[in-house]
Amino acid sequence: MSDKKNSNEMWGGRFASGPAAIMEEINASIGFDQKLYAQDIRGSLAHAAMLAKTGIIAADDHDKIAKGLNTILSEIESGKFVFSRKLEDIHMNVESRLAELIGAPAGRLHTARSRNDQVAVDFRLWVKEEFQRTATALKKLIEAFLKRAEEHAATLMPGFTHLQTAQPVTFGHHCMAYVEMFGRDLSRVKDAIERMDESPLGAAALAGTGFPIDRHMTAKELGFREPTRNSLDSVSDRDYALEFLSMAAIAATHLSRLAEEIVIWSTPQFGFVRLSDSFSTGSSIMPQKKNPDAAELVRAKTGRITGSLVGLLTVMKGLPLTYSKDMQEDKEAVFDAAETLELALAAMTGMVGDMTVNTAAMKKAAGSGYSTATDLADWLVRELGLPFREAHHVTGRAVALAEEKKSELGKLTLDDLKSIHPGITDAIFGYLTVDKSVRSRKSYGGTAPEQVRRQIKFWQKRITKS
Amino acid sequence: MSDKKNSNEMWGGRFASGPAAIMEEINASIGFDQKLYAQDIRGSLAHAAMLAKTGIIAADDHDKIAKGLNTILSEIESGKFVFSRKLEDIHMNVESRLAELIGAPAGRLHTARSRNDQVAVDFRLWVKEEFQRTATALKKLIEAFLKRAEEHAATLMPGFTHLQTAQPVTFGHHCMAYVEMFGRDLSRVKDAIERMDESPLGAAALAGTGFPIDRHMTAKELGFREPTRNSLDSVSDRDYALEFLSMAAIAATHLSRLAEEIVIWSTPQFGFVRLSDSFSTGSSIMPQKKNPDAAELVRAKTGRITGSLVGLLTVMKGLPLTYSKDMQEDKEAVFDAAETLELALAAMTGMVGDMTVNTAAMKKAAGSGYSTATDLADWLVRELGLPFREAHHVTGRAVALAEEKKSELGKLTLDDLKSIHPGITDAIFGYLTVDKSVRSRKSYGGTAPEQVRRQIKFWQKRITKS
Amino acid sequence: MSDKKNSNEMWGGRFASGPAAIMEEINASIGFDQKLYAQDIRGSLAHAAMLAKTGIIAADDHDKIAKGLNTILSEIESGKFVFSRKLEDIHMNVESRLAELIGAPAGRLHTARSRNDQVAVDFRLWVKEEFQRTATALKKLIEAFLKRAEEHAATLMPGFTHLQTAQPVTFGHHCMAYVEMFGRDLSRVKDAIERMDESPLGAAALAGTGFPIDRHMTAKELGFREPTRNSLDSVSDRDYALEFLSMAAIAATHLSRLAEEIVIWSTPQFGFVRLSDSFSTGSSIMPQKKNPDAAELVRAKTGRITGSLVGLLTVMKGLPLTYSKDMQEDKEAVFDAAETLELALAAMTGMVGDMTVNTAAMKKAAGSGYSTATDLADWLVRELGLPFREAHHVTGRAVALAEEKKSELGKLTLDDLKSIHPGITDAIFGYLTVDKSVRSRKSYGGTAPEQVRRQIKFWQKRITKS
Amino acid sequence: MSDKKNSNEMWGGRFASGPAAIMEEINASIGFDQKLYAQDIRGSLAHAAMLAKTGIIAADDHDKIAKGLNTILSEIESGKFVFSRKLEDIHMNVESRLAELIGAPAGRLHTARSRNDQVAVDFRLWVKEEFQRTATALKKLIEAFLKRAEEHAATLMPGFTHLQTAQPVTFGHHCMAYVEMFGRDLSRVKDAIERMDESPLGAAALAGTGFPIDRHMTAKELGFREPTRNSLDSVSDRDYALEFLSMAAIAATHLSRLAEEIVIWSTPQFGFVRLSDSFSTGSSIMPQKKNPDAAELVRAKTGRITGSLVGLLTVMKGLPLTYSKDMQEDKEAVFDAAETLELALAAMTGMVGDMTVNTAAMKKAAGSGYSTATDLADWLVRELGLPFREAHHVTGRAVALAEEKKSELGKLTLDDLKSIHPGITDAIFGYLTVDKSVRSRKSYGGTAPEQVRRQIKFWQKRITKS
Repeated sequence: MSDKKNSNEMWGGRFASGPAAIMEEINASIGFDQKLYAQDIRGSLAHAAMLAKTGIIAADDHDKIAKGLNTILSEIESGKFVFSRKLEDIHMNVESRLAELIGAPAGRLHTARSRNDQVAVDFRLWVKEEFQRTATALKKLIEAFLKRAEEHAATLMPGFTHLQTAQPVTFGHHCMAYVEMFGRDLSRVKDAIERMDESPLGAAALAGTGFPIDRHMTAKELGFREPTRNSLDSVSDRDYALEFLSMAAIAATHLSRLAEEIVIWSTPQFGFVRLSDSFSTGSSIMPQKKNPDAAELVRAKTGRITGSLVGLLTVMKGLPLTYSKDMQEDKEAVFDAAETLELALAAMTGMVGDMTVNTAAMKKAAGSGYSTATDLADWLVRELGLPFREAHHVTGRAVALAEEKKSELGKLTLDDLKSIHPGITDAIFGYLTVDKSVRSRKSYGGTAPEQVRRQIKFWQKRITKS
Repeated sequence: MSDKKNSNEMWGGRFASGPAAIMEEINASIGFDQKLYAQDIRGSLAHAAMLAKTGIIAADDHDKIAKGLNTILSEIESGKFVFSRKLEDIHMNVESRLAELIGAPAGRLHTARSRNDQVAVDFRLWVKEEFQRTATALKKLIEAFLKRAEEHAATLMPGFTHLQTAQPVTFGHHCMAYVEMFGRDLSRVKDAIERMDESPLGAAALAGTGFPIDRHMTAKELGFREPTRNSLDSVSDRDYALEFLSMAAIAATHLSRLAEEIVIWSTPQFGFVRLSDSFSTGSSIMPQKKNPDAAELVRAKTGRITGSLVGLLTVMKGLPLTYSKDMQEDKEAVFDAAETLELALAAMTGMVGDMTVNTAAMKKAAGSGYSTATDLADWLVRELGLPFREAHHVTGRAVALAEEKKSELGKLTLDDLKSIHPGITDAIFGYLTVDKSVRSRKSYGGTAPEQVRRQIKFWQKRITKS
Repeated sequence: MSDKKNSNEMWGGRFASGPAAIMEEINASIGFDQKLYAQDIRGSLAHAAMLAKTGIIAADDHDKIAKGLNTILSEIESGKFVFSRKLEDIHMNVESRLAELIGAPAGRLHTARSRNDQVAVDFRLWVKEEFQRTATALKKLIEAFLKRAEEHAATLMPGFTHLQTAQPVTFGHHCMAYVEMFGRDLSRVKDAIERMDESPLGAAALAGTGFPIDRHMTAKELGFREPTRNSLDSVSDRDYALEFLSMAAIAATHLSRLAEEIVIWSTPQFGFVRLSDSFSTGSSIMPQKKNPDAAELVRAKTGRITGSLVGLLTVMKGLPLTYSKDMQEDKEAVFDAAETLELALAAMTGMVGDMTVNTAAMKKAAGSGYSTATDLADWLVRELGLPFREAHHVTGRAVALAEEKKSELGKLTLDDLKSIHPGITDAIFGYLTVDKSVRSRKSYGGTAPEQVRRQIKFWQKRITKS
Repeated sequence: MSDKKNSNEMWGGRFASGPAAIMEEINASIGFDQKLYAQDIRGSLAHAAMLAKTGIIAADDHDKIAKGLNTILSEIESGKFVFSRKLEDIHMNVESRLAELIGAPAGRLHTARSRNDQVAVDFRLWVKEEFQRTATALKKLIEAFLKRAEEHAATLMPGFTHLQTAQPVTFGHHCMAYVEMFGRDLSRVKDAIERMDESPLGAAALAGTGFPIDRHMTAKELGFREPTRNSLDSVSDRDYALEFLSMAAIAATHLSRLAEEIVIWSTPQFGFVRLSDSFSTGSSIMPQKKNPDAAELVRAKTGRITGSLVGLLTVMKGLPLTYSKDMQEDKEAVFDAAETLELALAAMTGMVGDMTVNTAAMKKAAGSGYSTATDLADWLVRELGLPFREAHHVTGRAVALAEEKKSELGKLTLDDLKSIHPGITDAIFGYLTVDKSVRSRKSYGGTAPEQVRRQIKFWQKRITKS
């Protein structure tokens, strides 16, 4: 496979001098677009079959082309193919090798096609498959959470607002909050696939073609719902890439929130969870350290993905129609974000399944910080008929008294409480435990274990079906 | 309405000193969240009705609350309401006024509710409505394009790649490319509404509540499909805001591409379109200038919207559950992006409908730059059976000859052409006109006027139904 | 001041119809650029003085213009001036009012000037002043830290890596880390001022002017070091705005790191600091809450500032020279970032000065988590001559033993330690206390109190001089 | 070099199980940080020399370490070194190989050092060198512009605002605008180097060390001005990376503006410049195309660099001190932005030097669009004493008349002009030519060739000295 002509030579005889070294470096995409080899060959196979079916090329040429393309596929997959930067991109690398293998018929493959629609179909196929891989990864993470949520539907922990203890909740309930988030990500993935499920092949350079091609045939062959409706848009649209990146950026935000919690929960001060050794590392100088590196790295990956989104939004800003070379920047942004997201989802699925939950520490923290103060206020409303605002004031004074006495709220004496509001009776003490508090919050979507289990069942069914 | 207590006083008696001036400035949101007044009052009306229906508050209290809230709504809409920064936010401004109007029963409204679910429901209502307004604005822009596309289904213009003349297309076809883009934006809006159509009201602070509330009732009352399923997620989720911003950023990218084209097309060098005086301005120093300001401003707005998206992604990165005050930054980002997008869509709808198309200049440019070279190559494939790659080379030499002779391709003599390839006959001259070229590209989605009209019909139907 | 002509009328008689309502809305900048009124008037005063000095206008006209401009300045500052959106921007609002006040001579002010260089000089003046305000605010924050660092030069606290206890440090040392960060911000501000200290006035529309103006005179008058050297660049450059925004984004990152620490340190689990009531808020439902809202808001503001930076970078991307209307988007981005940064710096200065440091909790935490393990390893190297890697292994085993025995490292028995390495003597116990550990780290820039005090002195001097 | 231990084994005996595959993948940085090999070895050589000088290790050990490190350097540079992902990063890869080569003394190298200060010093050295490479590349680009500016100091072209012809300028003047821009970038680079020129080596893990190290010695040895002043900041600071990225983003904005101009100027409609074949490419389908790919790619690269900046700003947002693993994301962002910027600068330097300027097309365009209208207005002010505003109106009417007559301004008859304003004399015709217009704009920084040449001289001197 030595002695390849460079792609410039393939364009024709019009260029006096070859591309300068710097140009080759900035221009060539083969360094990254070789990732699209399978899609490129699938696209060419579908195109060639259609050209034969519609009589644009001879059946015999089609046979040779198909055989040659399959040979190239094997060569690439077995690592024997030598990619050449002089040939710029995956399309020219494949076509040039095809010419070596089958000679003249190779020159017929590009009939009624351009690199503009060819790269569009290659990249769409790849992004569609990546969306599907993302769906699978999201489901695995959701399943990991559902499993932990079942185990811990009744495990007490503090619910936080402002990272301050607010009210007791269960760890299962907390897990289910992430199920909702990643469930929305999954839903975004599905909508995006539906929207981009159109084949641009046949748009040719930008205007369509005079050859009697059958775009519905190639669309079907490649697994797309239908062909795109406008040839100019077909070669200049990168919405599916932007939508992948924005989906990924939002999912990364969810991952980063969870990662932040794991980092905080792993401190000796919190001590709620302990990552397995598999997801931690030590220190080169401090022998005692056990660091939640995996969580920190997942948290950081948000930056990378947001960066890729901003990058491609900036690239596309203000580009006149149709294809501009700027759009070559679409691939690395998406490839990097896709790998990053896959890795972060896998790492998080591992951590969620693997981490040890310190239920004792969680329970202890759940009871600190006057976490049942709202229960007292609610009791005042329910039992004494106080308006909530007044109950809130009364409770505030009770908390202040407890702080002063360095006592928990449930450990104040009845006299203490009566000094705050004379109507309080000892019935109140049944409401100031963490356990009672959690079990009482039975409103739809609330933290009571029965509610948590209800939502676990809902999601188990939904995920199985999806 | 003088003499309001500050909201700090409303929280209870636990704070020794009032907030410092700087704190009031950084903390207060009333400057921007007053925009949510209607949603806040609707949410409170639904909540109060539910509290009464479920027996949590008395019917009589409900009546007073409802009447009071409606009074406040009138006060705000008539401009009589005085917003107070001391009262921090829209919720406290309304509740404090309610207390002035109806006294004690006002204190019962906040039963089984928290500002955390209250702001979540207010903001969701607003964002949902804004998504709907965006859908309407997108439809108007699409309709403006459909109208121009019909007028210009057969108007010749150059199709560009790399801003170089590539092949002739029609202006109608070009318009329809934008219909596809804004059509995808519309589709994203609809998916997003579907996904976020859940009511967080009743999640209370974060854990749900022990009061026997009916979240399905308030969800229905407020026009949501159903209540959210997890109370922690309900108060910490801002996905709907991020999804609004990413939809807006992608739509803005489309707008910026169109704006760039208008700017370039308005130059004396191109001269394809002329904006009406309504969308242009003059110069304070150069009396002859007529600048496409409206297009430039639309182009620039992409930056602002991308900035808001990045802003909120950054805010949400790494926030532990559930509500953190950081999330107060969600509103201005979305409000600004929403106004910006609405304005840019309206301005573009105006420009598209209004601009004068210089069909003569377009047609002339369509024929320059050897734009029918592909037609020559395709003829060589079709008529002489050349492989496309060889036809491409032959055509390249023809273009080089034409350049040398400073001739158009269709003005070369038959001898000239035969010197390039002996098989060429004078039949070729029927294929080298711009008009013939365009009419030949009848592949599905191609630029032939019949194809353009077919897609116009498709979209007219789709928009009418949507 | 009623009955103003709109600015369109001022440009001349060439526009057939007035701007549409939507155009007025998207085009007018007076809503935000009125903030530049003082700079606009200063610029005009300097320009008029120069025109008179060079004989381009008569002394008498200059007198009238100067008097009129000063009247307008008073009108604006006393709130009597009515800004008109029809007049688009601050320049036209001022000039139109000047014409009302002094008649014909007003028409001479715009000689040898354009709105392009006028807005450039106005905005540069404003940004330069804002850089100076930022310098002052940074110095105040640094001084607040220096004060706390002096108080706490020897206050023990855990030093963290990965938010895990690593080695003991002092709180003063921690404060001084922020002095370094904000010190770099200050240095960036100064470099930026130096770089942008050039007056664009006199570049006129873009090409300079044929009038014999004296740009050095106006530059000096306005406090700039010198005039800019290229008229095209003068009206199309917004680097100073981008540099302000990138400086602000980096400073905001520092603020967000500190804010994150305050949020974490304020949890009951850490309990290292307590914000004063002035910088906290309560909850509308949970009477016991005391939330570090000010820190959370500062943390969130990073998003807003990064968003503004991205916004303007996106606006400027791909703009051909010279002025394009897109550049009108520069102002709101910078104004918003500037206000946000000022507010965040002030809030943080308040919090740093105001917060209560719980030295007992810090000290206790400093001793947990085997924080002196490195000291053991270093002792093994120093006293027993072990290679560091071996010492690290030995210490690792000692930590494991301590964990197993639920003991601190310094509470292991000599026998325990000898079982790990027979060479260990009881001299080691003098090195395993937190206090000893901290005092030992006397390397330049290390955490030993004497080192901390040395750096405090260095910065006190530097800040005084700056 | 087979059989390497993994770095986990090096940390000590405390981890029960090895890192999971996914952890290895997300955690290992050797894939990208091997780029730092030279800096890592330089840092270790300096550290070892200092340890020997201060008596912390024996001279003999130092000799072995130094020899071993130099061997490793040769192995890496000759491609013989096998990097291992199990060993995570460049530090552990080098140290592990050192142990193989020299045995026990290798274990002494990490005395008084941690990977935290090691990576900080490696990365700073790399970034500092990259800043220097950037300075060189910027100077080359400036020199290329100075050369073109000299050639074209008097070459007429239209000056644009809003991409509309505004006033005639010279191409040399236009080139000099870019000299100003890239000159500011160069100035930012220099300030940044000055600010970051401090050695973090010796900060150890985060707190400094008890060993009697000499940080001034290592700082000097490594070419830094001085050691950093705070050990906590030393290991948690990444300002230099953020400052590199923001400098790069601003420079990329300049490059994108120029690239946009080249793309527009290369259209047949403008035809101002023609890129050499070296910086253009053809089309796979359209034989006549010659696309300005290099310019488009440079324009697109802005997105990538802005994305990297946003990425790292997001990573650093809200990270508590000191080192967190998140910061490992700093390297790829900077490496990618650095390579991208170098490539874009080189490509642009090539294009600027190489492109053919079509002076005839430029001159023709300079005279179109009533570009000398301002000259007429200025004449009316100067010669007839009209206030500028009135002159502006008069000129507007003259332009309208010329448009109506499809005439140029200078081709109107004296009667025509007198009908607009009776005071106009035939002296005016000397002022309405493009050439006269340009030569008249002699204000400092104006477009008159003498002014352009003055600024070229200024910059030639400045660049030579810098």
